[in-house]
Amino acid sequence: MNLKNGYVHGGDVYKNRVTLDFSANVNPLGTPEPVKAAIRASAGDVCRYPDPYCTALRERLSALHGVSPDGIVCGNGAAELIYAFTAAVGAKRALLPVPSFADYESALRAAGTEPVFYPLLREEGFRVNTRILDAIDERTELLLLCSPNNPTGLCVDRDLLQKILERCRATRTWLMLDECFWDLCDAEKAFSLAGALETDDRVFLLHAFTKTYGMAGVRLGYAISKHAALLSALSERVQPWNVSTVAQAAGLAALDCTDWAEKARALFRTEKVFLRESLSALGVAVHGSDANFLLLSGVPTLYEELLKKEILVRDCQNYRGLIKGDVRIAVRTHAENVRLIEAITEVLHG
Amino acid sequence: MNLKNGYVHGGDVYKNRVTLDFSANVNPLGTPEPVKAAIRASAGDVCRYPDPYCTALRERLSALHGVSPDGIVCGNGAAELIYAFTAAVGAKRALLPVPSFADYESALRAAGTEPVFYPLLREEGFRVNTRILDAIDERTELLLLCSPNNPTGLCVDRDLLQKILERCRATRTWLMLDECFWDLCDAEKAFSLAGALETDDRVFLLHAFTKTYGMAGVRLGYAISKHAALLSALSERVQPWNVSTVAQAAGLAALDCTDWAEKARALFRTEKVFLRESLSALGVAVHGSDANFLLLSGVPTLYEELLKKEILVRDCQNYRGLIKGDVRIAVRTHAENVRLIEAITEVLHG
Repeated sequence: MNLKNGYVHGGDVYKNRVTLDFSANVNPLGTPEPVKAAIRASAGDVCRYPDPYCTALRERLSALHGVSPDGIVCGNGAAELIYAFTAAVGAKRALLPVPSFADYESALRAAGTEPVFYPLLREEGFRVNTRILDAIDERTELLLLCSPNNPTGLCVDRDLLQKILERCRATRTWLMLDECFWDLCDAEKAFSLAGALETDDRVFLLHAFTKTYGMAGVRLGYAISKHAALLSALSERVQPWNVSTVAQAAGLAALDCTDWAEKARALFRTEKVFLRESLSALGVAVHGSDANFLLLSGVPTLYEELLKKEILVRDCQNYRGLIKGDVRIAVRTHAENVRLIEAITEVLHG
Repeated sequence: MNLKNGYVHGGDVYKNRVTLDFSANVNPLGTPEPVKAAIRASAGDVCRYPDPYCTALRERLSALHGVSPDGIVCGNGAAELIYAFTAAVGAKRALLPVPSFADYESALRAAGTEPVFYPLLREEGFRVNTRILDAIDERTELLLLCSPNNPTGLCVDRDLLQKILERCRATRTWLMLDECFWDLCDAEKAFSLAGALETDDRVFLLHAFTKTYGMAGVRLGYAISKHAALLSALSERVQPWNVSTVAQAAGLAALDCTDWAEKARALFRTEKVFLRESLSALGVAVHGSDANFLLLSGVPTLYEELLKKEILVRDCQNYRGLIKGDVRIAVRTHAENVRLIEAITEVLHG
């Protein structure tokens, strides 16, 4: 929260002078107009406490994912739910593939859980592969997985995910699967575990409105699980009114914007090719990615040099397993991507 | 949060058909227009992540309370900070005067802290008196106090508060003092401990925008403490972006509305007299209150009968130490208060 020393994420346009932000992985199309309208309209309702049950929103999400409303909890962003989940599970030990989103580790430590790091290897393109099956054993109370992963953008393959699920079932391991980037992921790679919840109740799926609908400043995420006792334990750790009236209204409006994610994915299909080819032509290493962001390597001063040009990218050297020069960029609109490539060209050859 | 079974608070206008809400203790003047305007304007900014440091807001609050910005943390409502505080302190045992706000107990239990209840007695008008000094001893790691208290509206007297503070200093007891209703409290009773922070660093003061500025649906509260290690431990338990862009903008606008609280207090000065005299004339017992709400007793069916008339009051029988017929009403505008008195007259004599 606001006192945390050493903020470690992208999107910090507040401490830096930034004209172009490639550091946050949000939808480059921005916030849909109906969502903005819902936020404006909610100004007249904020005198009252929010609906503590998020009734309307949970009903809509329930229909969307084909699960009961009782299996859905809404949070002040998905980030809140990560902390509530680790606290509710209260595991001694958790398996955590790295590099990945820094708050998984923070949330584990806050819950008194020891993270056992599972290194995703550079020489394997940071891919989760079958090696992970051997790392899951009876002492693994909890596995935190992100697909597509942040900062690599790589999905766990569907077959492997099924095997991981089976392994977790056999070892009675909780699986938190962060699917927050799922909506903006290449269609042929996108695969949600929502369908597996019927048979595997120790699964906790994370989703967010943040990226898909350009709602990072609103704070709205949700989780899906069939495990009633877990959801109850989790709820007891969170205040009654954690989701604002504004966020509930914005979320409902966002769910009506059914083509917003596909519009973004269409943009990514061409722009990822453009960025990848342009960067490769410049000699910048680009790792594989199924998502709306790319991990680059090999130019140690790239972050600093781009910041001088008021372009913010995500310096990834504070991710476990990554080093200086590992930089994450969001895929944005063509005009913005062109400006980024021009700037990188100047950095390298200017 | 949204799955919590048996929601125990006022303000639930979502599950009930309600025309008049006397159950939530918010400013009856509603949300100031500049705050609504700030919420509407923020719709254009929500694509970006919120400022994780709440820089501008914490600077303003720092100036307002005469403390360093490092001594202020902002939360997703004060409620979030209660849970984060009890988790950060991690006490074995805490002293909790009752009746009081239900989430103190919930937050203690979530942190694994055993609440030791200190009963405020009906025959003493539910006042905190010097008896409490004997209840604070070396085993009391933590004392949670609310002044003015919810649901009674009574402030702890200034002299007694000083003695409590001295006692806590001697026994090395943490004091969380919830001052969320302070701004709407009778001026002669209002007394903040902010000035005591210089000498007593084991004090944690809670404030909120919720009640004063009609911002319950926005979620914005803050805490003041000089204890750097506490604030650091607390921050580690909360996600980086706990305060939305909307809430930060609304909070800044609210702080410019410097006469909003005084306008409300002026209303309360006459309306509390009106309600008290009208209720007494009807034979309804009204307890003493220094705040913008009143605790009534003795009419067991009052809550249900008023709800039939689409008037929601706070049924207090689920507060520890209170019983059926104990009902809390907010002090609202004269027209609304007249309608409430008319409705109660019908219930009793109609």
